[in-house]
Amino acid sequence: MTVKTSELELQTKGLDHVIDITDQVAGIVKGSKIKHGNVTVFIHGSTASVTTIEYEPGLVKDIRELNEKIIPAKAGYAHDATWGDANGYAHLRASLYGPSLTVPVVDGKMTLGTWQQVIVVDHDNRPRSRRVIIQVMGE
Amino acid sequence: MTVKTSELELQTKGLDHVIDITDQVAGIVKGSKIKHGNVTVFIHGSTASVTTIEYEPGLVKDIRELNEKIIPAKAGYAHDATWGDANGYAHLRASLYGPSLTVPVVDGKMTLGTWQQVIVVDHDNRPRSRRVIIQVMGE
Amino acid sequence: MTVKTSELELQTKGLDHVIDITDQVAGIVKGSKIKHGNVTVFIHGSTASVTTIEYEPGLVKDIRELNEKIIPAKAGYAHDATWGDANGYAHLRASLYGPSLTVPVVDGKMTLGTWQQVIVVDHDNRPRSRRVIIQVMGE
Repeated sequence: MTVKTSELELQTKGLDHVIDITDQVAGIVKGSKIKHGNVTVFIHGSTASVTTIEYEPGLVKDIRELNEKIIPAKAGYAHDATWGDANGYAHLRASLYGPSLTVPVVDGKMTLGTWQQVIVVDHDNRPRSRRVIIQVMGE
Repeated sequence: MTVKTSELELQTKGLDHVIDITDQVAGIVKGSKIKHGNVTVFIHGSTASVTTIEYEPGLVKDIRELNEKIIPAKAGYAHDATWGDANGYAHLRASLYGPSLTVPVVDGKMTLGTWQQVIVVDHDNRPRSRRVIIQVMGE
Repeated sequence: MTVKTSELELQTKGLDHVIDITDQVAGIVKGSKIKHGNVTVFIHGSTASVTTIEYEPGLVKDIRELNEKIIPAKAGYAHDATWGDANGYAHLRASLYGPSLTVPVVDGKMTLGTWQQVIVVDHDNRPRSRRVIIQVMGE
């Protein structure tokens, strides 16, 4: 058993930019030589999140509209009143989806469905440089 | 330290069918002989999710109504317009709840509360055959 | 590779009490002497959840208001009708946010952002004594 940690650096556009990182994560899993175990994908920061989705333009549009519906950007958040950040909504979206995802690895590959991609969503209200920690653990 | 991976195959009814898999996961943990570590439960596919709940008929009804309230089945999703799938809502629900759950294992047992069960929710709009990957890691 | 499991005991006020446990988790990671791996934070019970947020009073207020908006306390849940518990909403919030969080550990520290804290939210409708399982795995 061993553990190998890598980082991805992403340049995002913010505003619920949805980024498919499946190929990069798969490449890191392959490069780790770990055949059997899991990979944890963790977003550094409090205004972005990690989950899976079928990555296609329709659902990218749909998830952005869903987020605006349940956590509207302009709804008078206390965070914005206190800090003048105007990104309270981004923090709430990030907390709801969560910063972390763990995917089993079998025979050196993630056990994802064919139409199941690993995505980072940057909920912040401006372009950001993002660190994603990719940790492979196993044997 | 070692890692053991199993699969569950589930026949679901779709339409937010809630399935309690606690006993099966507990059986796999026991069979692994791993006493101390954790178990990751991961759903293969992009229209189902994994979480915990008190599994009783009232809450099963409540979670289905909640999902229909926040992500209605018929709300005109771009995914449906593009692909004619009519299950855009199922993708969004799956992304929001997430496909993965990790539970610590102590003395060969999951550290769940008495009224805390591991569930798969199949959000898709038709019966499905589902693969659930159950991975136990530890010593 | 090794695994070390600890428990935190929290006294909460219920009613979506948000508790920052970052320092306690960091102390447990440090005490484990594990330098490279991850830590899983798991809440025992079905009416509380674990996630990350920028822990400041504005967002604490905002997340509580968000939860009341999307899953109102008094909305006539089947769970409440059956069991007389009046906390159906708390179960649903807990299932949506999820009970588990995994954070990578590098050089003995969690890879959290500066404004990214680990929180437990107790959604239940009364003060509770809570067990949080903190499991560090790695080398």
